Amino acid sequence: MARIVMKFGGTSMAGIERILSVAGRVKREAAAGNEVLVVVSAMAGETDRLVQLCREAAALHDAREYDVVVASGEQVTAGLLAMTLQNMGVPARSFMGWQLVRASGVHGNARVEAVEGALLDEALRGGTVAVIPGFQGVSDDGRLATLGRGGSDTSAVAIAAGLSADRCDIYTDVDGVYTTDPRIVPRARKLDAITFEEMLELAGVGAKVLQTRSVGLAMRANLPLRVLSAFEDGPGTRIVAELSGAEMEHNRIAGIAADRNEARVTLTAIADQPGTVAAVISPLAEAGILVDMIVHAATPDRGSSDLTFTVPRASLAQAMAVIEQRRAAIAYADLIHDDAVAKVSIVGVGIRSNPALAAKMFETLAERSINLLAVSSSEIKVSALIAEAELDLAVRVLHSAFGLDAEQAA
Amino acid sequence: MARIVMKFGGTSMAGIERILSVAGRVKREAAAGNEVLVVVSAMAGETDRLVQLCREAAALHDAREYDVVVASGEQVTAGLLAMTLQNMGVPARSFMGWQLVRASGVHGNARVEAVEGALLDEALRGGTVAVIPGFQGVSDDGRLATLGRGGSDTSAVAIAAGLSADRCDIYTDVDGVYTTDPRIVPRARKLDAITFEEMLELAGVGAKVLQTRSVGLAMRANLPLRVLSAFEDGPGTRIVAELSGAEMEHNRIAGIAADRNEARVTLTAIADQPGTVAAVISPLAEAGILVDMIVHAATPDRGSSDLTFTVPRASLAQAMAVIEQRRAAIAYADLIHDDAVAKVSIVGVGIRSNPALAAKMFETLAERSINLLAVSSSEIKVSALIAEAELDLAVRVLHSAFGLDAEQAA
Repeated sequence: MARIVMKFGGTSMAGIERILSVAGRVKREAAAGNEVLVVVSAMAGETDRLVQLCREAAALHDAREYDVVVASGEQVTAGLLAMTLQNMGVPARSFMGWQLVRASGVHGNARVEAVEGALLDEALRGGTVAVIPGFQGVSDDGRLATLGRGGSDTSAVAIAAGLSADRCDIYTDVDGVYTTDPRIVPRARKLDAITFEEMLELAGVGAKVLQTRSVGLAMRANLPLRVLSAFEDGPGTRIVAELSGAEMEHNRIAGIAADRNEARVTLTAIADQPGTVAAVISPLAEAGILVDMIVHAATPDRGSSDLTFTVPRASLAQAMAVIEQRRAAIAYADLIHDDAVAKVSIVGVGIRSNPALAAKMFETLAERSINLLAVSSSEIKVSALIAEAELDLAVRVLHSAFGLDAEQAA
Repeated sequence: MARIVMKFGGTSMAGIERILSVAGRVKREAAAGNEVLVVVSAMAGETDRLVQLCREAAALHDAREYDVVVASGEQVTAGLLAMTLQNMGVPARSFMGWQLVRASGVHGNARVEAVEGALLDEALRGGTVAVIPGFQGVSDDGRLATLGRGGSDTSAVAIAAGLSADRCDIYTDVDGVYTTDPRIVPRARKLDAITFEEMLELAGVGAKVLQTRSVGLAMRANLPLRVLSAFEDGPGTRIVAELSGAEMEHNRIAGIAADRNEARVTLTAIADQPGTVAAVISPLAEAGILVDMIVHAATPDRGSSDLTFTVPRASLAQAMAVIEQRRAAIAYADLIHDDAVAKVSIVGVGIRSNPALAAKMFETLAERSINLLAVSSSEIKVSALIAEAELDLAVRVLHSAFGLDAEQAA
């Protein structure tokens, strides 16, 4: 017997027939003797509809009232799933976010602070399936608070962690985590297992299977996740702290990430002196602009060099304005920007111990004459900024080179 | 300065444009220096949609889960109205039913037990308009509870009573209470004022402007109500404990009620002895059948007589079965039923003091050869059961005879 959290996304909850199918999956887990908590999203399209109503009501609206409106979508599906389960002979009841999930931070984008476990514990021990609307809780001011888009994943993980669940299964419309975007590489392969860190890097750079915040939360709680299909049976992909010996090869790359949401900014001939980089980056951070790749290497004895960084495309105009306002203070020669760029990354825990992997990446791209506009690397990821027109080719050749294509797999 | 509750029905909340118009009305009352609480229904059609989802999920569903699902409709409109008001420069915030309305009784048809006034008092005194979803509260078990269909009127009145409001204005899609159903009598006249008792009798017998429960609640709290149009300006109809001298004439009839939802049952030749009527009526009450008109008069020295009563048409088959099961115990000769009957009533506080009004009713019907199948009367109402085919004619001739036609009015 295990205690498990099952989370179902909007596509799985879109209509009574699909809710019936979800109830069937829940019943199977409960019938196997597990204690089951289910976290549900709103029906697909419903949250968008509610957000649109808020926009029409007031272009700039109070986040607390927004929360009241949009939180209703998950409330509906939670009630419907609970009654569907009861109708199938499975003891079940819904709990509202305001009854058990304490949230903090700003309305519309709150964080889960704590989960009132006693109420749930009692239900679970009595053999009742607990159904909980995702994406919401109650804030310090006693009002409804939502967790931001995609927050149902975070709810599920927070509830699983708070209730000491053995695992959290995220049911979605894909059957697992892939080595790369199958729209770019049709031979992309489903992974049996991936580490939290790898998943964070893949999610952060484009693989949108799980909300990043939920993965970080699971990693801190050391809570095993599974991503699996709500529509087909299958083992899905396990997301774990460490891979087993068999899964972990020396040269393992988990996947290739692709991100088109990049724009490059270069300041030429800035002084090589302490504080110059900070003088550029700090005002951007203050303006709320997410600076991603930062590339700067001073050339010895030349006295000045270039600084390149990337920002999300939607922030490019604002970033340029922030820099131009500080032209005198920063003292650069030219300010150059380019939004026809993209980022390709190899992600894998193997990178940590094997420098040959980064070298292989650069060689592979060079063979196809793909120019590197910038490079950055972390413990488990190497990223290259390239022309956007070359992104698909880059992803495909790297996917093959690292042995990830489906046919090449064991 | 007054403290007022404004209640808006589903038609008034159906879409952002109408919510904008509602916000305009609320702003006017707030700008006039009033403390304003607004109680809202779900968008027209939304509650039906949610009820339908519940039916599809499970034919027999848990009322607590039903409450979770259907309560969401008013939550959405409350949030939208609050943000619309804010956008118009009116300080406003929504409060949820679970934050302030304690309900008791069965889920799906709960009663308002108490309203937590402190939270609202503070907001109102600070000049904030409080927007509250109608039709819902929190039950003793700490879960969402709804008040039954039409419960938003009851919410509004309960909140007005609990917060010692000076009055409660019910905005709806008609501009007031009429002397009778305008579909039957085009010359039906809008009343300026009506007493709670008259309104209860009119509502109970067919005039469906206000939920009956809300009128009873207002009467007990001696809280003046107003029914008025959400779409046009106008004084509407005041519903009050007592009419002023000018409004109150000796022979005043407030209106003519018509009710087609009647079926007649007659038991012939039952014994004239104590307990016979109870032996018929009690089992019907136990079966949850609402018995309306009961007509029984023993003929002296004959030893037996007939008993006639009416039930809602939908309950006729069940009522017949209940009586037939007890044929031996009751000992009647024949059991006769007729569902082509209807009830016409005159309603007015004048009836109490003027027996000539009932006489005038019978004479008017006799002049048109309308046969009386049964008659019953209370302090402020006289009802006649007639053939359904004659109902429209009966309403029209009574409406004219009692001087209620629009042209005949002062």
